[in-house]
Amino acid sequence: MDVTTQIEQALVDALEHADKPGCPPRLVSAMRHAVFPKGARIRPRLCLAVATACGDGDPKTSTAAAAAIELLHCASLVHDDLPCFDDADIRRGLPSVHRAFGEGLAVLAGDALIVLAFQTLARIAPAPQRLGKVLLSVSEGVGTPRGIVAGQAWECEPFVDLANYHRLKTGALFAAATMAGAAAADVEPAPWRRLGEKIGEAFQVADDIRDATATSAELGKPSGRDAALSRPSAVRELGVEGAVHRLGQLVGDAIVSIPSCQGEVELRTLIMREAKRLVPGKMAQRAA
Amino acid sequence: MDVTTQIEQALVDALEHADKPGCPPRLVSAMRHAVFPKGARIRPRLCLAVATACGDGDPKTSTAAAAAIELLHCASLVHDDLPCFDDADIRRGLPSVHRAFGEGLAVLAGDALIVLAFQTLARIAPAPQRLGKVLLSVSEGVGTPRGIVAGQAWECEPFVDLANYHRLKTGALFAAATMAGAAAADVEPAPWRRLGEKIGEAFQVADDIRDATATSAELGKPSGRDAALSRPSAVRELGVEGAVHRLGQLVGDAIVSIPSCQGEVELRTLIMREAKRLVPGKMAQRAA
Repeated sequence: MDVTTQIEQALVDALEHADKPGCPPRLVSAMRHAVFPKGARIRPRLCLAVATACGDGDPKTSTAAAAAIELLHCASLVHDDLPCFDDADIRRGLPSVHRAFGEGLAVLAGDALIVLAFQTLARIAPAPQRLGKVLLSVSEGVGTPRGIVAGQAWECEPFVDLANYHRLKTGALFAAATMAGAAAADVEPAPWRRLGEKIGEAFQVADDIRDATATSAELGKPSGRDAALSRPSAVRELGVEGAVHRLGQLVGDAIVSIPSCQGEVELRTLIMREAKRLVPGKMAQRAA
Repeated sequence: MDVTTQIEQALVDALEHADKPGCPPRLVSAMRHAVFPKGARIRPRLCLAVATACGDGDPKTSTAAAAAIELLHCASLVHDDLPCFDDADIRRGLPSVHRAFGEGLAVLAGDALIVLAFQTLARIAPAPQRLGKVLLSVSEGVGTPRGIVAGQAWECEPFVDLANYHRLKTGALFAAATMAGAAAADVEPAPWRRLGEKIGEAFQVADDIRDATATSAELGKPSGRDAALSRPSAVRELGVEGAVHRLGQLVGDAIVSIPSCQGEVELRTLIMREAKRLVPGKMAQRAA
């Protein structure tokens, strides 16, 4: 089974576990709406790539970790889209969850997806000595003090450190992906944090470039939002060309940070290939 | 250390873990506002009582399980109080989290408390073979298909089975408390589900009685809401006297359901004592 199929199957299985008699059907529909059709699944693919590079001997655990990371990402999008934050009408080319199902179900679908991530870890019953470290890596990447929820909460503070805001809001879940991948392969997760953080930062810069150069149809959501809302962005700070240069630096930093492991060469190749997909050719040309 | 102190200390420790440099201070304040000052802590006390009855040999694990259950309960109150559900101004005699901190931080404080529950389980690093079962009991009591989030989501369905709604919305976390207590003591959790469900049902009936007979000052939130909002309740269905009788039956059912264990007698005594606290004497007198 290729990695994409493996991830989609794990997510389908997780949602099927939720969809049992007694569960409110509209809640399950809202949860599915948040998870399918698939996005880029970049975080779970990164998680599995690190697990493989670390000599993954327990694919059930790494697949559960990857699925948990993606469920948490989907949950964060549902809550970020709420009227009290971005008030977004569209996500992945479809109505956002609160537009399709109402605000109450959007709050609960996000909650249920957060819990489903942990249920997925618990249900797969990974080798017990790995569960603790996987659970710690995943939960710290989402919660407080330095997970994505804390990152989003910086939007509610009067004074914001922007670098810290981005590191938490975007970088934390990428760091959780690399660390959980290592933990699932029974490798100490801490040395894998930097790789995740650098890829997260690169992803944020690429996102800023896409927002400035892509069409709304290409993005599946409105483009040009950073400029329209005067939001801080790498493009506003560095210009498109400067941002593309910065992206290249960050990918280089990420590759240099890969800890020594048996699949180091393959992981390096994979990250360089994925980095090229972050800003598709025609957007780069248009920007040039 | 008595049980109350033990629970409060575990909750203080959990919140201190969240309150680190880099974490948005208003988020931490909102989380503390949701957890302190203390409520009855009935779920974590039940969790610890079951662990003790099962011959708890690992108090770190049972305390972490108890704290996780209470954090999840507090998270559910924050989200249930939101304008898209109960739109409650007051909780435990203080402004609700969204009134005090705004809707965005209320959503995020709830999210962060859910994740903190799982971080607390992960950080305490319980005996690995117990972690899986504790994690499963706790997460299934909160999520889908039959946890409290699914229970709350029945409020968003056009057709509702009321018994199922109450079993999920209230009973599921009580069942998680008894099951996680057993799992923390390395005892098979499934036989402990019924005790939690029956206590949850009794608690729901007691809540209905208090809503009908207590003053707002006694409750720390508006009283008489079931009648005002035409909500289904045991008092509406059976009258106050009938509801008090039903409460007695449920407590009896709970006690009969206690699985055989070394601390069976003490647990029975404890549950009978706690049951008397559910409806304080002066409310019972007023109702009579």
